[in-house]
Amino acid sequence: MKEVEEKVLESGIVIDNDILKVDSFINHQIDIGLLRKISKYLANSFENVDKILTIETSGIAFATGVAIELGDVPLLFAKKSKSKIVDPNAVYTAVVKSFTRNIQSEVTVSKNYLKKGERVLIVDDFLAEGNASLGLIDICKQAGAEVAGVAIVVEKGFQPGRARLEELGVKVVSCAVIKEFKDNKPVF
Amino acid sequence: MKEVEEKVLESGIVIDNDILKVDSFINHQIDIGLLRKISKYLANSFENVDKILTIETSGIAFATGVAIELGDVPLLFAKKSKSKIVDPNAVYTAVVKSFTRNIQSEVTVSKNYLKKGERVLIVDDFLAEGNASLGLIDICKQAGAEVAGVAIVVEKGFQPGRARLEELGVKVVSCAVIKEFKDNKPVF
Repeated sequence: MKEVEEKVLESGIVIDNDILKVDSFINHQIDIGLLRKISKYLANSFENVDKILTIETSGIAFATGVAIELGDVPLLFAKKSKSKIVDPNAVYTAVVKSFTRNIQSEVTVSKNYLKKGERVLIVDDFLAEGNASLGLIDICKQAGAEVAGVAIVVEKGFQPGRARLEELGVKVVSCAVIKEFKDNKPVF
Repeated sequence: MKEVEEKVLESGIVIDNDILKVDSFINHQIDIGLLRKISKYLANSFENVDKILTIETSGIAFATGVAIELGDVPLLFAKKSKSKIVDPNAVYTAVVKSFTRNIQSEVTVSKNYLKKGERVLIVDDFLAEGNASLGLIDICKQAGAEVAGVAIVVEKGFQPGRARLEELGVKVVSCAVIKEFKDNKPVF
């Protein structure tokens, strides 16, 4: 999507040719007009979706937009911190490594809300190493749910995320794929 | 809103006449059809809103819906965990006590995205003691922004949240107000 590439070029901040800050329009403040265009594009890229699955926190807004565009399919978000209320036998669990924060965290989804045979579209703001999506795919497998694909706002194409997902036969669609950072600018 | 009351009665689970679990349609799995009706209702209750402010995590989906209904106003969500990337002088900070988890956490908003004179609508899934909203109002004050009001999905009317907000002159609109829990059922 040209609009996402242009917005990343205009408003994204690259630090040390490594980290891309997009907190003016994606993961702190969110440009809702752009979110709606992104949601339409991603929703139109997948078929027969029964449920949207994302991971807290910054995937939730875009997942909401895609769920609306798909005709009000339910949205489920995996939780990072364990609530006191949760029975560990009542949840599917996966371990996800965060690239930017260099920590591992456990994410959980209630067994009540992910069922065998459901076609699940995974939505997230970023794809880099693919760890979050791999964790969510693992949770879908545990539930016997089918993965309709992975829908991403911004992909770092020079990291192995897409290859790791496509190896599993999962369709990946990103609104913008960054080939490299050069002189602290993204190149598409 | 009748629909929210009915859904809480039908799908909410009350534990010990104290804790209301709504994770089948509000804060883990989200009923997107209901979210859209809630978003319309809340958006129609406020005027001249420049920006939506919420707090991670479970307010984000509803805040996204309200932002869309208000004609694509920007959405800003306060962050609970401090990113390594963030300069402490670059953020507004408030301390928020969580009622259900009994912990205090610091929430931050970048000074770049909240400006003097902006009319800000605070959106959240729950209102009980009002601590999250009070923290966000404090952040708006620090920025010199004006609070257009607080928009809530489910309010526990027997807790002091609303009174504490209205004391500050802040308009509060909730889709459903629970008067009490009786025999582990909410009463509206």
